[in-house]
Amino acid sequence: MLTLLRHLSSSCCYGGRRSIATVISGNKTSKLVRERLKKEVDNMKMSNVIPSLLVLQVGNREDSNLYISSKMKAAAEVGIDAAHVRLPNTVTQDEVLRTIMSANEDVSVHGLIVQLPLDSINHMDVEMVTNTVSPLKDVDGLSCINAGKLSRGDLNNCFLPCTPNGCMELIRQTGVSVAGKHAVVIGRSKIVGAPMHDLLLWNHATVTTCHSKTHNIPEEVGRADILVVGAGRAEMVRGDWLKEGCVVIDCGINHVPDESKPGGKRVVGDVHYTSAYQRAGFITPVPGGVGPMTVAMLMQNTVLSAQRVLANMAAAGRSL
Amino acid sequence: MLTLLRHLSSSCCYGGRRSIATVISGNKTSKLVRERLKKEVDNMKMSNVIPSLLVLQVGNREDSNLYISSKMKAAAEVGIDAAHVRLPNTVTQDEVLRTIMSANEDVSVHGLIVQLPLDSINHMDVEMVTNTVSPLKDVDGLSCINAGKLSRGDLNNCFLPCTPNGCMELIRQTGVSVAGKHAVVIGRSKIVGAPMHDLLLWNHATVTTCHSKTHNIPEEVGRADILVVGAGRAEMVRGDWLKEGCVVIDCGINHVPDESKPGGKRVVGDVHYTSAYQRAGFITPVPGGVGPMTVAMLMQNTVLSAQRVLANMAAAGRSL
Repeated sequence: MLTLLRHLSSSCCYGGRRSIATVISGNKTSKLVRERLKKEVDNMKMSNVIPSLLVLQVGNREDSNLYISSKMKAAAEVGIDAAHVRLPNTVTQDEVLRTIMSANEDVSVHGLIVQLPLDSINHMDVEMVTNTVSPLKDVDGLSCINAGKLSRGDLNNCFLPCTPNGCMELIRQTGVSVAGKHAVVIGRSKIVGAPMHDLLLWNHATVTTCHSKTHNIPEEVGRADILVVGAGRAEMVRGDWLKEGCVVIDCGINHVPDESKPGGKRVVGDVHYTSAYQRAGFITPVPGGVGPMTVAMLMQNTVLSAQRVLANMAAAGRSL
Repeated sequence: MLTLLRHLSSSCCYGGRRSIATVISGNKTSKLVRERLKKEVDNMKMSNVIPSLLVLQVGNREDSNLYISSKMKAAAEVGIDAAHVRLPNTVTQDEVLRTIMSANEDVSVHGLIVQLPLDSINHMDVEMVTNTVSPLKDVDGLSCINAGKLSRGDLNNCFLPCTPNGCMELIRQTGVSVAGKHAVVIGRSKIVGAPMHDLLLWNHATVTTCHSKTHNIPEEVGRADILVVGAGRAEMVRGDWLKEGCVVIDCGINHVPDESKPGGKRVVGDVHYTSAYQRAGFITPVPGGVGPMTVAMLMQNTVLSAQRVLANMAAAGRSL
């Protein structure tokens, strides 16, 4: 009987209802981050330094234009001096690399990002383009050097990729401590899954990475105290897979047909929200979860880069 | 009754005895690797290229001398032209960096390693020293750039760290395919655990990394089809933790008191060998398991570096 009661108490709430998750709002959290950054930028003005960001675009993809527009808007709100340079889709790789190197050398640029994907009629080696950005200005955190530092635990000496760093910020909002927890990451992409593993690991979680070759994803998910999903598959994670009370962070952005919506489609995550909401302790919505955090973390990295420059200037001044 | 039989057959062998592991010999496997490399080096002689390795040592630690001696011996056996440069422990960091940069520029050097730990009376920034080695000659695979490439799945465009690469070679010897298996790594060091995770992940295992903050290591270990231990704790993994039939790779080298041995101590791994041997499908011994593979993989990386130089020369020749 005692065993039965224990079972009930672990899977149900008072009154026999299943638990209902607390929603972790990326909209609210990213607003708090932007407000904090605005104060930090204001403080830097006393030192005559305004953080600056250069967004380099190749071509004119409509989705890229939208993303860049939201970055420019956030930068303006925080007080970052942001410039958007658009090269035509006829540009050669050499011209792109020269533009990057010129921005690397420009001391007035603190953060430099290349909007991906590159939209060009010419061949572009994306790895080469990404790695030509100086690691000291790579506020997207995508260069090999920054990835290497993160993956080996040197977190304070690199730029953390924006989406996983935003996920960490959302996890912090829950008050659930990461150290010692079992975390599961679904996906191993360069911008979400792989760096997410590193961040959780070096915040001392025991981390399992799942991917397309994983045999029993539901079983792995069922062991997660903290679950981060960046799989790119609409609603693949079902509520009944989840450990009761876990933290669910959904990085998915998928468009599914929905006749009731204008445009005939709606956006869903990689997690089946309605069922997961009944079982998780905390969950991010889609949209309004991880998405806005990515842009906020880009702003944070840009401010951090300017602060590092300022700290180096101060150190150089002291040693004169 | 059927259930009982199934249980017996999964946990026992014919006659009711527990299974006994096949021992994966690092001595034998490393010998095969060296023999293969010797043939490759012989083939390169027709192109007038002899792979060369420079081992840079700071100070005169006895353990480093022993490790370097085994590297020099393996190089001689394979036909690699190896040089050992020992700088005194009074050397400054700047002098060490200058020596590294000089070797970076020397086209006759294909592989360059700095023996760690640095034994100097002066302050040395180990990260800076390691990262001054050109990533194109970093045959220890310890620079940020090589770590970044490995951690993000760009395995064919970097140098893989020698100990985890040796572990992968031993796993290959078992015939057990890695893709889709559940792998557990204990430890997250820069030279063993962290890159081991990456190698298993990008060979498509589902990987869990455990460490000092993991709450229930025996439970995690019990789920491993493939277990790699680099914890630095003598005999911490017990046989009864293991999943029957799993592959156990033990990277530990620990000295424990043993009055029956000359010197009053003996070497054991991080796995309790006698009990694990009764339960695993495959197991590496200590010594004679991972240890000799590390040196063999250093030789393999050095030959690979020379082969890349040769391929670049051929490509440049074709484009003339």
